[in-house]
Amino acid sequence: MSQRTVFFISDGTGITAETFGNAILAQFETNFRHVRLPFTDSVDKAHQAVREINHAGIVDGNKSIVFTTLVDMEVLKVITDNCHGMVLDMFSTFVHPLESELNLKSSHRIGRFTDASKSSAYQSRIEAINFSLAHDDGQSNTDLEHSDIILVGVSRSGKTPTSLYLAMQYGLKASNYPLIPDDFERQQLPPALKAHKSKLFGLTIQPERLSEIRNERRPNSKYASLENCRMEVSEAEAMMRRSGIRWLSTTTKSIEEISTTILQEIRPERLAY
Amino acid sequence: MSQRTVFFISDGTGITAETFGNAILAQFETNFRHVRLPFTDSVDKAHQAVREINHAGIVDGNKSIVFTTLVDMEVLKVITDNCHGMVLDMFSTFVHPLESELNLKSSHRIGRFTDASKSSAYQSRIEAINFSLAHDDGQSNTDLEHSDIILVGVSRSGKTPTSLYLAMQYGLKASNYPLIPDDFERQQLPPALKAHKSKLFGLTIQPERLSEIRNERRPNSKYASLENCRMEVSEAEAMMRRSGIRWLSTTTKSIEEISTTILQEIRPERLAY
Repeated sequence: MSQRTVFFISDGTGITAETFGNAILAQFETNFRHVRLPFTDSVDKAHQAVREINHAGIVDGNKSIVFTTLVDMEVLKVITDNCHGMVLDMFSTFVHPLESELNLKSSHRIGRFTDASKSSAYQSRIEAINFSLAHDDGQSNTDLEHSDIILVGVSRSGKTPTSLYLAMQYGLKASNYPLIPDDFERQQLPPALKAHKSKLFGLTIQPERLSEIRNERRPNSKYASLENCRMEVSEAEAMMRRSGIRWLSTTTKSIEEISTTILQEIRPERLAY
Repeated sequence: MSQRTVFFISDGTGITAETFGNAILAQFETNFRHVRLPFTDSVDKAHQAVREINHAGIVDGNKSIVFTTLVDMEVLKVITDNCHGMVLDMFSTFVHPLESELNLKSSHRIGRFTDASKSSAYQSRIEAINFSLAHDDGQSNTDLEHSDIILVGVSRSGKTPTSLYLAMQYGLKASNYPLIPDDFERQQLPPALKAHKSKLFGLTIQPERLSEIRNERRPNSKYASLENCRMEVSEAEAMMRRSGIRWLSTTTKSIEEISTTILQEIRPERLAY
């Protein structure tokens, strides 16, 4: 079977190049061999990259696709002048027209996160990750008022990965709090949450899917049984409705889709990105 | 002060549009007001977006910048035909030349994670996040052999956020394991790790920075004292050298840079992305 190789070349981590390149490639019903060439920050490394690209083209019998976010024009020139691949230059393509429109020169600064450890946006992301971990699954009521968002829902409804995503991607302090049978008996939100109603967001899930997920963890338990999942989900949804908090079903949604929807609803004041 | 607004418009979450747009905008020493318009998936919503863009342009006295990843050409046409902003179309710009080169039509499928909950790559990402959480800070030795990567280092050297990033971004099962005074006394890696040496990667950090970080958590403790941090870091580095495991210093690096470097060294067999 004929093959084609796609290269992601960057002066920095190449994560932006790859995220974006993957989104573009997902538009085609075909597979590519992926090669990452991060930290390509010298003319020497660029020549090495050219050799790899041209070699792959010969072996594959197909031109390689080369996504680059190189900001060093000297390094980029080595690639564009010498490689036989198809170069998709994500930097210049958009930066040059923006320079005209903004009437500003671009800084040609490498990497979204250069000197990251010193930037306050980066520090607040790391703080948010630590905060979200410490406030996972109702572990701590301390500092709950410093949360930007508090997710509630039954066990395994998607709260933990969503909290971590909100922290990592947006630098938001996202706590999460389980709704458990005690709460259903009292027919009340957990007492610790009452003071923070504007920050609450509920996650629910189809009982059938919940039962599948719980069965992977604790096979054949009452906890995982469809009957119990039905009861918990129905109680949790009734409680969210009664309390007037916003909620959504995670059943067919990715953590990216869940997070984006939450941000549209909650619009936290503090958004690092 | 004059202002300029930047819009991120997508049929999906808009996260790709925003990540990439931010990387481009970071090249300019100026601030923008950010507006996200995710889930713009109908002609009606497109007209609403046009009104917002044109209104912002009038209020700001500056053309808005509009990054789009719209894949629905009908929706995109409403934007390009009617808005007075500068449209940077990240989809067509690269997809059209790729269609020619690949001799394939693109699927115009929305979103990198459409039907995510059903895709095996997405499932393995969520599994990896759960695995990494369960194996944070040496919490569990069970299943350690299923790790793709095991990070080791002293407390607060950056292991936890890096593990979670590796799981979330790459779907890798990343455990992490602390090196503690007991290990230094024995002058041996923790016994549970010995069978997994090829998966180990060490993180170290400047003692001064470590002391700062630990002082935020436990001010004026022996744990956070510069003297103790110096001792732990020097013992940990000696142990990593002796054991022949690869390592790097996280002091001035972001979790993205740390992760990219680790992947270049470890090259795990299984990479979801």
